[in-house]
Amino acid sequence: MTDRILIKNLSATPEGPVSVSGWVETVRDQKKVQFVVLRDESGAVQLVHPRSEESDPIAESISGLAAGSFITVSGDLKIDERVKLGGLEIKLSDLTVVSEAIAETPIAADSSIDKRLDWRFLDLRTPRNSLIFRIQTTLEHAMRTYWIERDYVEIHSPKLMASPSESNAELFEVDYFEGKAYLAQSPQFYKQMAQAAGFGKIFEIGPVFRADPSFTSRHATEFVSVDAEISWIDSHEDVMKMQEELLVAALTAVKNKHGEEIKTYFDVDVVVPSLPFPRIPLAEAKRIVAERGYEVPRADDDMDPEGERQIAAYVAEKFGHEFVFLTDYAASIRPFYHMRDDADQSITRSYDLIWRGTEITTGAQREHRIEVLTKQAQEKGLDPEELSFYLDFFRYGVPPHGGFGMGLGRVMMLMLHQPNLREVTYLFRGPNRLTP
Amino acid sequence: MTDRILIKNLSATPEGPVSVSGWVETVRDQKKVQFVVLRDESGAVQLVHPRSEESDPIAESISGLAAGSFITVSGDLKIDERVKLGGLEIKLSDLTVVSEAIAETPIAADSSIDKRLDWRFLDLRTPRNSLIFRIQTTLEHAMRTYWIERDYVEIHSPKLMASPSESNAELFEVDYFEGKAYLAQSPQFYKQMAQAAGFGKIFEIGPVFRADPSFTSRHATEFVSVDAEISWIDSHEDVMKMQEELLVAALTAVKNKHGEEIKTYFDVDVVVPSLPFPRIPLAEAKRIVAERGYEVPRADDDMDPEGERQIAAYVAEKFGHEFVFLTDYAASIRPFYHMRDDADQSITRSYDLIWRGTEITTGAQREHRIEVLTKQAQEKGLDPEELSFYLDFFRYGVPPHGGFGMGLGRVMMLMLHQPNLREVTYLFRGPNRLTP
Repeated sequence: MTDRILIKNLSATPEGPVSVSGWVETVRDQKKVQFVVLRDESGAVQLVHPRSEESDPIAESISGLAAGSFITVSGDLKIDERVKLGGLEIKLSDLTVVSEAIAETPIAADSSIDKRLDWRFLDLRTPRNSLIFRIQTTLEHAMRTYWIERDYVEIHSPKLMASPSESNAELFEVDYFEGKAYLAQSPQFYKQMAQAAGFGKIFEIGPVFRADPSFTSRHATEFVSVDAEISWIDSHEDVMKMQEELLVAALTAVKNKHGEEIKTYFDVDVVVPSLPFPRIPLAEAKRIVAERGYEVPRADDDMDPEGERQIAAYVAEKFGHEFVFLTDYAASIRPFYHMRDDADQSITRSYDLIWRGTEITTGAQREHRIEVLTKQAQEKGLDPEELSFYLDFFRYGVPPHGGFGMGLGRVMMLMLHQPNLREVTYLFRGPNRLTP
Repeated sequence: MTDRILIKNLSATPEGPVSVSGWVETVRDQKKVQFVVLRDESGAVQLVHPRSEESDPIAESISGLAAGSFITVSGDLKIDERVKLGGLEIKLSDLTVVSEAIAETPIAADSSIDKRLDWRFLDLRTPRNSLIFRIQTTLEHAMRTYWIERDYVEIHSPKLMASPSESNAELFEVDYFEGKAYLAQSPQFYKQMAQAAGFGKIFEIGPVFRADPSFTSRHATEFVSVDAEISWIDSHEDVMKMQEELLVAALTAVKNKHGEEIKTYFDVDVVVPSLPFPRIPLAEAKRIVAERGYEVPRADDDMDPEGERQIAAYVAEKFGHEFVFLTDYAASIRPFYHMRDDADQSITRSYDLIWRGTEITTGAQREHRIEVLTKQAQEKGLDPEELSFYLDFFRYGVPPHGGFGMGLGRVMMLMLHQPNLREVTYLFRGPNRLTP
């Protein structure tokens, strides 16, 4: 490996000879002295070079440096409190241009999001944008660690399926040798299969695919889904309890590791929520938002995005909480595999989790009784024949179980107060975006 | 949650009342006393019920129990060293059938692999098969922890692409609204994009797709790829060094957590390899296997599977090592993006990693000089126009970098001495298998 010091470690390095590598952020090419701001994955540092009056190859290199070029430099590290950037600088003794950039950068700080996504690899060079993915790394590792400490099994369910995983809508079709396959819309059926297999508790973080033609800030045709499923639950309450603990563990890890940087680059204070999160049955939530003067303009029993914002505002005012579980959704607007309430068959043992006004999760207890499950599928107009591979999971015994699916991008978007999934996705995919 | 004790924890539980839940493995319905072996995700325990001479609903339940049914029982835990299964049993006071199984099980221990895969959710109920996925969980977590402790960033690259990620062969085509998309054959281009973005060190564990019509024990149309890519390397040696350390960390974690179970269920001693792994240039490897009497029957410069087995046998005999890096593959048989040797343009700075005779990884330093990269693409008959989105990554500066891709299933197969990827994959996908 190149024998370099990470820039973040310079402040703990004694004055004297050092070598660093990274890319050129800015050049100030003055008559008597030249300055370069060099950035690597950990930070930025000022390089200084007083021009010599004789032949000066370093000065010539710096004069020709295009921003973005990757270089390796050696020099003397000096503490200098006058230097705004970290209170130190490196006086150059050697500079090697490893990879030259084209002089014209195609995007600027004020470029449109679409233009920035065209040049995502340059867009991600800003410390703010690369921070997003270091935060996401911490978030995911904390979630996996929470699960692994509790003996969950990680699964990788197939993304190629012979039939739809959720519904016939929003389905991508694949040419599969002489036939057809479909891309998994969720790992739903295969998470449940693990329960029939006796795995007990499982999780998966992986891609899902939705042929959703919409262009909202919250939808993508491919996104990362965070999924868990657990056996021997009494109701969806057990799933909510696990999920809220999981989120507290994950947000605590993020706040501890990145709280200050998040404040610096996003002006956001990461709030670790208190336990338990508030829970409000959907019918009650609709009454509450109606009392606030908002009638949800839907013919069905569902909430709408404005209703979710209204109930979040109510919860923030009343409980000082950013999260709320809306529970007991009507069976009419839930998938056939959600278990219904014993006392009231018109509602399900299910929930959505709303964070700062936006839905990030659907969870539920699943119907595990084969005859009830088959009947519910038929009521939704599904053909049990087409679902036979899934229904088989329930014919040979299966414990009561439930789980949730959570969009990783939505969590990142809401955590960092971003307006759009595109900002927090490594490479966004939508109806008219398949590149880079 | 159901208030149950995991079966593995019974041995540390005092005698007295307990409740356990799981599925019925066997029933011995004798005249005076009934025995049930109950299994959960953690182990198995014997339940005992002496028949009463009066009305005995528990006895009736047990007589009607089909294997596979999920039940919850309460009773008195008794230490009894005569009981082969863990030296304890539970004398029943209550039994609830939670979910009845069909009496006829469609597979048996001697069913064909294809039949077992048709009923994978039952096949996975055996302690041996469920252990595979607990081991995989430990392996993956150890790898991710190794990376995260070293400040790697986790990425999720898109699986939907506008053009091929590796080659025009083995490509799945997707109907994408009015156009077409392709499934990623690897995260290769997007791992490299992270280097241009200045991420430094990244990893991804996720699905990749190959429209490969072959039916070998080592190929699948969808599999989980373990990928890493790092900046500022001097050569492929730096990548090998990281990968061997990673594997030592992962295998150490597996051996510590599951070594005894693996011995019990697979009769395999997990060997933590010594560092460094042997390295042999491919040309020398071919001379060595030729000296052993095997001439690789290929027109090109590549190894073949038998050659890989032969060189592995040589390495085992000579160095007592299960792993070997074969290095310096000919440029003619490597992708255009592998960097060539400075002194000999006919060979690449690349390697394959062979474990016990089977290839599990290809790694390389990547060519990052745009003019060389473009020329190498053209020499391979590729159209730089089609690759323009990828070639753009190299026009604005990029550090020297390299990485590897490793098939998770192959690692599991070789670790557990299994004959086939199908045995170690949650749900295998091949040319004629898309279900369940």
